[in-house]
This record gives sequence, C-alpha cells and structure tokens, in this order.
Amino acid sequence: MRAVILAVGTELLGTDRLDSNSLRLTAALERHGVELRWKAVVGDIEPAIVAALGRALADAELVLVSGGLGPTSDDVTREATAAAVGRGLRSDPEVMATIARRFERMGLPMADSNRRQALIVEGAVALRNARGTAPGQRIDLDQRTIFLFPGVPQELDGLIADALLPWLGERCGAVARETVTLRVAGVPESEVEERVKPAYPEFGRESITILASVADVRVRATAEGPPAERHERLARMTERLADLLGDGLYSRREEDDLETVVGRLLRGLGRTVATAESCTGGLVAERLTRVAGSSDYFLGGAVAYSNAAKEAVLEVAPELLAEHGAVSEPVAAALASGARRRFGSDYAVGVTGIAGPGGGTPEKPVGTVHVAVAGPLATEHRRLRIPGDRERVRQYTSQVALEMLRRRLLADGAREAS
Amino acid sequence: MRAVILAVGTELLGTDRLDSNSLRLTAALERHGVELRWKAVVGDIEPAIVAALGRALADAELVLVSGGLGPTSDDVTREATAAAVGRGLRSDPEVMATIARRFERMGLPMADSNRRQALIVEGAVALRNARGTAPGQRIDLDQRTIFLFPGVPQELDGLIADALLPWLGERCGAVARETVTLRVAGVPESEVEERVKPAYPEFGRESITILASVADVRVRATAEGPPAERHERLARMTERLADLLGDGLYSRREEDDLETVVGRLLRGLGRTVATAESCTGGLVAERLTRVAGSSDYFLGGAVAYSNAAKEAVLEVAPELLAEHGAVSEPVAAALASGARRRFGSDYAVGVTGIAGPGGGTPEKPVGTVHVAVAGPLATEHRRLRIPGDRERVRQYTSQVALEMLRRRLLADGAREAS
Repeated sequence: MRAVILAVGTELLGTDRLDSNSLRLTAALERHGVELRWKAVVGDIEPAIVAALGRALADAELVLVSGGLGPTSDDVTREATAAAVGRGLRSDPEVMATIARRFERMGLPMADSNRRQALIVEGAVALRNARGTAPGQRIDLDQRTIFLFPGVPQELDGLIADALLPWLGERCGAVARETVTLRVAGVPESEVEERVKPAYPEFGRESITILASVADVRVRATAEGPPAERHERLARMTERLADLLGDGLYSRREEDDLETVVGRLLRGLGRTVATAESCTGGLVAERLTRVAGSSDYFLGGAVAYSNAAKEAVLEVAPELLAEHGAVSEPVAAALASGARRRFGSDYAVGVTGIAGPGGGTPEKPVGTVHVAVAGPLATEHRRLRIPGDRERVRQYTSQVALEMLRRRLLADGAREAS
Repeated sequence: MRAVILAVGTELLGTDRLDSNSLRLTAALERHGVELRWKAVVGDIEPAIVAALGRALADAELVLVSGGLGPTSDDVTREATAAAVGRGLRSDPEVMATIARRFERMGLPMADSNRRQALIVEGAVALRNARGTAPGQRIDLDQRTIFLFPGVPQELDGLIADALLPWLGERCGAVARETVTLRVAGVPESEVEERVKPAYPEFGRESITILASVADVRVRATAEGPPAERHERLARMTERLADLLGDGLYSRREEDDLETVVGRLLRGLGRTVATAESCTGGLVAERLTRVAGSSDYFLGGAVAYSNAAKEAVLEVAPELLAEHGAVSEPVAAALASGARRRFGSDYAVGVTGIAGPGGGTPEKPVGTVHVAVAGPLATEHRRLRIPGDRERVRQYTSQVALEMLRRRLLADGAREAS
C-alpha cells in the first residue's frame, strides 16, 4: 500500500510554522510498512484542496489529510473533500448531539459556526474525537481510502490511536517494522554517538538513529522482517545498545519522559519529593506534576525568586545569602533542605542560577547554575555552565535536576535492597 | 506571480525531519508579494520528481526546488528536471573548473561522482554557490521559471541572497506585503470569528486569518500594495479588528505571549505578583518567569499539591478544606491571599482543580478548576469546566489565570489614573 499525506492550513504556508502533524502520521504508516510517496501543504482554499486530493488519489491508495475541520468559515476541508469525490455533505445527528453536549458541559452557548463541524461527507464513517469538537472521517472509495483528521496535535494523536492504527492493522496485517527507543539524559549527543558506534558494524548503520533535544537524547533501533526474527533481533540490539550507553540510559520506551521515570521510581520506593526553584521558575515542579497520579509522591514546591522569599518560605539563612550570594552551592543545598523540611518530603531538589539574558557577572556569567538534591542519606550538588538562551538554560537545568534525582533514587533503592 | 516550493529528499519523508528550507524560500517570496500556492516533499526518485515538477508548473509561474544536487547517485534532481522540461543535460566547463579548484584548495582528490555536480540543464543559467560544490540553476521556460537550489541550509541561504532575491526584485519590485497579528485570550475561536466577521466585506475575507491554540487565538491582517497605501490600509484594518475583538485583545504583536503582556503591565504599574498553584503544578509561575527580567515583579510561588502543604505554606485554614474541599472557590481565594501574604506581593494568583485523568467525582468531574486573583482592592474568582486531557486542562487554566490577572491590572491601573 502507498500513501500520500496532505496538511491543510494557510498558516502552514507562512514563514513560521511547519507541518509537524505529518511526522505523527508517517510514524503510523511506517509501523505497518506503508510507503509514503509524497506529502504536501495546501492553504485553506477549496479548489487548491480539491486539486491536491485529485493528485493524491492518482498516486496512492491511502490519503491522509489533517487540518481544516474547525468551525470557522475558512475551514473548508469537508467541502473540498466532498467535491473531490463527487459526493454531498450531510449533517450527522449523532455528531451534532455530541457537539451540543460538549458545549453544555462547558456551560458555553454553541455558536452557529460549530454546526458545520457535524457535516460529514456522504457515505463517510465519522470517527469519534474524544479530545475535540470535530470528528475525523473515513471515506472509502473504490480501491482508495481518504482519512480526514483535525489539525490539533492532541486530537490527531487520539484519532491515530483509535482509528488509523486499527484500520492499518486490519489492512496491512501485523506490524512489519518495529522500533525501540532508548532514552538518555545527561550525556551530550556526540558522546552518545561515540558510545553506540561499536554497534554499527554489528547491526547496520541505518538501523540505528540518534535524535537529540536539550540534554536529552533518543537512540532508536529499528528491525524489520517476520515477527519472531524481528523480535529476536530487536532484543539483541536493545541489550547491546543499553550496554554501550551505560548509566545515562533512563528508559527503553519512547513515551517515557524523565519525569515519568522519576515518578515511577518514587512510587516504587514509596518516597515523596518537593522542589525549591529560583532560575527555573517552577519548571521542575511543572514537569514532575505533568505526570498523571503525581499527587501520590509530589508534595509541593516553592518558586523563590527574591531573597526575601528564599528566607521566608524556605528558611534559607540570610548570612548564607550574604556570604556566598544567591547563586552558590550552599544556597542550592539550603533550598533543597528547606523544601524537604517545609513540605515534609523524603527528597527535595534545590535550584539556583542565572538564566539570563541579564544578571551575569564575570565570576558568575549567564548560564551558571547550582543544583542540589537532598535525601534522607545525603545532599548532593552540581555546578553547571550552560550555554544558550534563557529557555535553553531553564530546560537544561530541569533535565539535570531530574537526572540527579533519578540517580540518587536508584542508589538509595539499591542500598535499601541490599 | 504565484509560486510552488518542492523539497527533494527521501530523508524528509521519514519520522524525524521536517523541510525547514521551505520557510527560508517562503520568506523571500513574501518579501516580494509572491503568493505560495502549495509546497510538497518528494523522495529522491526520478519519476516522482518529474511528476511533482509537472504539477508545479501547471499551477505556478515560479517553481523553487531544494535538494538532490549532491554528488551521490541518489541525487537525481538534475536528471528529473531535464526530463520534466524535455531538455538534455550538459557538463558546464566553467562549473567543472570551479569544482576542481575547490578540491585543489582543500587539498583533496576530486571523486568522479563530483563531476555529476557540473551537469546543467540545457539552456539553464548556473548560479554560483560560494559555500558549496553544486551550483544552483535557473531554467527559464516560456512564462515559467524553475530554480534549483542545494539542500544544505547555508548554501541555500547564500543562493537566496545572491540569486533569488535580486531576480524577484527585478520581476516584482520592492517589498509588497505586510502582516499585523492581533492576539486574543479567553475567547473561543468560534466567538472570535463571529466578532471579526463584519470586517470581511470591508477588507476581503482572504486578508484576515484566524489561528487558534489552547485558549489563545491569533487574528492576522495582511495588506499588499505600495508602501503608503499598504500602511494606511493595515492601520485601518488593525483599528477595526481591535474594535471588533474588544476586551479579549491583549496585544497587537505576533511575538507577545500573554505572560509578556502581563509582565509589561506589572512593570508599568510598579506592582509585584506571586502564585499559589495546585493542579497547574507550577505552570503559571513557569510562564511568568519565562520572560526575561521577570525577577523585577515576580516574587515567588508555591506549588501546594497536598492539603498539608496548602495549610503549612499558604496558611489555608483546615476548616475551609474540610468544609468545601480542596477544589472550591473559598480555597482558591485562600490560596491567592495566602500567597500575597507569604510573598508580600501586590497581586497573587490561586489555582486549584482536577487535571485528571484520576480524581474526578460526579459533582466535581475532571476539568473542574477554580481560579482566583487577589489584589489590593479585591479578590476575583472563576469556575471552569475544561474538556480535554491533563495537559490541556493545565494549559487552559494557566491561560485563564494570566488573562484574569491582565484584566485586573488594567482595571486597577485605570482606576489609579482617574
């Protein structure tokens, strides 16, 4: 089976936005060995969408469209698709009722324009969208199938899982290609590449890819072929790569962020955590609490920007601030132990630093950050010099803080078990 | 003039890379008022490139192609373009000499494959590439023009500056198109559309676009034509749209996020702020402190997940928690006033709610959130029922909290001034 992906949206033809939805759709296609022929972006212009659909249907059996299902009059994917396949549109009463209930629940009046979101191409299957207003649609033609998806990424993800993957599974049989993602924190990308190099001749250079973001690296191992062979190969690759990556490896699952893994460790050990942050401004707490169920182990956090707040809320001694300055090892440690006391947690993270662009000095330039992790047995500290802008310094710091906490929890857990 | 952009490269059809070259080319087009009809990505497959070029030439007078000019045998853009326009390829002796000199300078032997990079479509103009081996090419057809560019971003940038912009300048005159972005919070997308509708007949439907993310909407007004006329028109559009959007409008600049605008108001009024968050887990503090210089007005925040933390850190009365539950109007208000006292700030935001997926009850389902803003004059409260997953509930809540704070600051500022 061959596929074409179309992204609809005039905003995607400007200078500041890329169609990242196609990556999500491509991942689904790859899982089932469907070849992507080409992909394109068209504006919210009916004849342009009609033309693109015609070309896509000429080249592929499967056409995946995202975007243009919103309520406003510039959302014309529904109309264009109906025109492209020579059918009409009808209002689906069930979809209409779902939309009405949604607005009722929110206590908002439904705008007339939302009625358009219940329009379905004649003969199409409406695909339930649990996270938004507009349903997806599947239009089966002779030898061809079109899927229409909303452009909002979370809604698209839901529909890929609920509608596209099951359909692909039925049509293309089981997964023909599988990937395992190894996630690594606190190791630079070039160092990760050096570490995994020995695996290239063993498994083939193209079956291993490395993808880096801020202080976080994904190593992806891919295997193809019949199930038994593929699983065996992937298991061998995973073991070998895990060995090579060493203690930076924090998960063997794509969907595990560092905060998820830290949360799992805390839950497993029956321990709790708190945070005290200056330059990260709440980012460490925000990441820890992104995880569903984090209220079981996250007790609370303080963002202490001013010295007064550091003293009043976290009982950092004024003399410490006066002697060493707010950005220092003793203050990071005092923030962590202050948070432990204040929130009554087993562990706490303390962060203080200069995220920039202002506030740097020759001795403490922008990017200077101190991170401390306090636990029942000890308090650890790291000093960082992080290059980059404010956002990067904050992101990098939060990653280091969580990684220090992860290693501390592993070490304490091992000690307890022994 | 209308244009189509094609990116060539099998690696751009995978799951981890996007065609960002098209953004650079689009910026050049926009500067000269050239309309981008669509853009597409095709693999390094000759017939696929030939087909895409045929479609592009059917839709536009200008076709910009990037990628596939490298020395290896999978780089076939040259061959495909020659086939698409029915011409041959010839080796350009001048280009060949330049390539040979380049290798000589680097002290490297020239691989045979590099000879392919001197191949030029018959009748094409070779465009000097100061930063790489392969030249660009301009192919003038009857009423149509094709540009071939290398895919390496720095080489592309050089050729845009040296070849594309001068050519566009000659053909289309000076810059011809400008955009103003109006940013709106706390108004649903469909309601924004209702509000701006009256402006469609006045300025043309296609000159106004609406772009929504979570509880945040951008309205973009675009004007074309000679400078004086264009500025005057854009000023009139901006005034009219601002009028229609009313009090939801928080900025007339694309780059202003809500936290930036709130920060500017706090700084202007010489006021400070603090936060007390439960379900948003630090997101409101994190957003406020993303802004450079926020330490001037942001004093601190608390993330009080447990009831014990709400009592200990923010002095929320235990009776209040027992009587109304943690997710209630009185507790949101107590969190806000507790943060005001604790951090000694003029204003404070209090948030409590159920982000899900667990924790919902029939009376207080997932998505139930209470937000309070306490100030020197009054404490305000809103109850929300937010549909969607944990991430959406948190993002939406933070947006509402910042928008309530913005309106409170505006009202207090106006009262002070009067």
